[in-house]
Amino acid sequence: MDLDTLKVDINYMLEAIKEAKEALEIGEVPIGCIIVGKGGGVERIIARGHNLTQTLKDPTAHAEMQAITSATSYLGGKYLKSCTIYVTVEPCPMCASALNWAQIGRVVYGCKDPKRGASLYDKSLYHPKTEVVDGILEKECANLIQQFFKTKRK
Amino acid sequence: MDLDTLKVDINYMLEAIKEAKEALEIGEVPIGCIIVGKGGGVERIIARGHNLTQTLKDPTAHAEMQAITSATSYLGGKYLKSCTIYVTVEPCPMCASALNWAQIGRVVYGCKDPKRGASLYDKSLYHPKTEVVDGILEKECANLIQQFFKTKRK
Repeated sequence: MDLDTLKVDINYMLEAIKEAKEALEIGEVPIGCIIVGKGGGVERIIARGHNLTQTLKDPTAHAEMQAITSATSYLGGKYLKSCTIYVTVEPCPMCASALNWAQIGRVVYGCKDPKRGASLYDKSLYHPKTEVVDGILEKECANLIQQFFKTKRK
Repeated sequence: MDLDTLKVDINYMLEAIKEAKEALEIGEVPIGCIIVGKGGGVERIIARGHNLTQTLKDPTAHAEMQAITSATSYLGGKYLKSCTIYVTVEPCPMCASALNWAQIGRVVYGCKDPKRGASLYDKSLYHPKTEVVDGILEKECANLIQQFFKTKRK
């Protein structure tokens, strides 16, 4: 484990958690993400997104889908080859496949989704060139989800 | 095979082909779809879509994704349980998974996608309650794609 990379990944994951909290505040399942890429030659956050499926009444309005559309629009092309997405929960097959079409460079996520996660599929849903990293701030990302469902069940 | 259902499926698939031709005319990979549901109590086309990934520079802008967002917006809810999607080419994992989240009633498609089709995955990407029908106007749907790539290679 490269400590410099870990530090960068943790800092960006904290930004994704901020997005998840935005979702929580409006009663959405708290999942958030950011996409980091080159904006004006410098590495920076080029897109942010949080789950809005209830608010928009749109089953495709996952955090990642919105951020992909936003990032490609920002970059002016349909690929995100030198970008990294930081997302609090493991992408579902829809989002993993969208990240595949975008040929994203890296996917970094917090906690696994044992019911709907892309890793439940034997054959990878990601692009063969995409590096996938899991478990960054895993407990913090999972806590948000657990807290949400605990409140819902009351 | 129920001939009445087949006739209905063929008529709606012709509408999906119209959408695919719209894509062809603007240089997009010619894939089109429609979603049929109850609008004002009567069964009708409630959404249309065609591939716009190049035009919008957005890898998520598949025909199905646009139609799902449009149909759920029209119906005012995030589920499409009593709807059918007619799409000229087999959905990719992103679109199959989006149709899963929408819990769509039926998926009817024309030709298979041997490289990117959802059926390449052992574990189904569709919702367990979704009925999937393939091969409706298969040759016509496949011809459109072949014609597109033949022109591209010239």
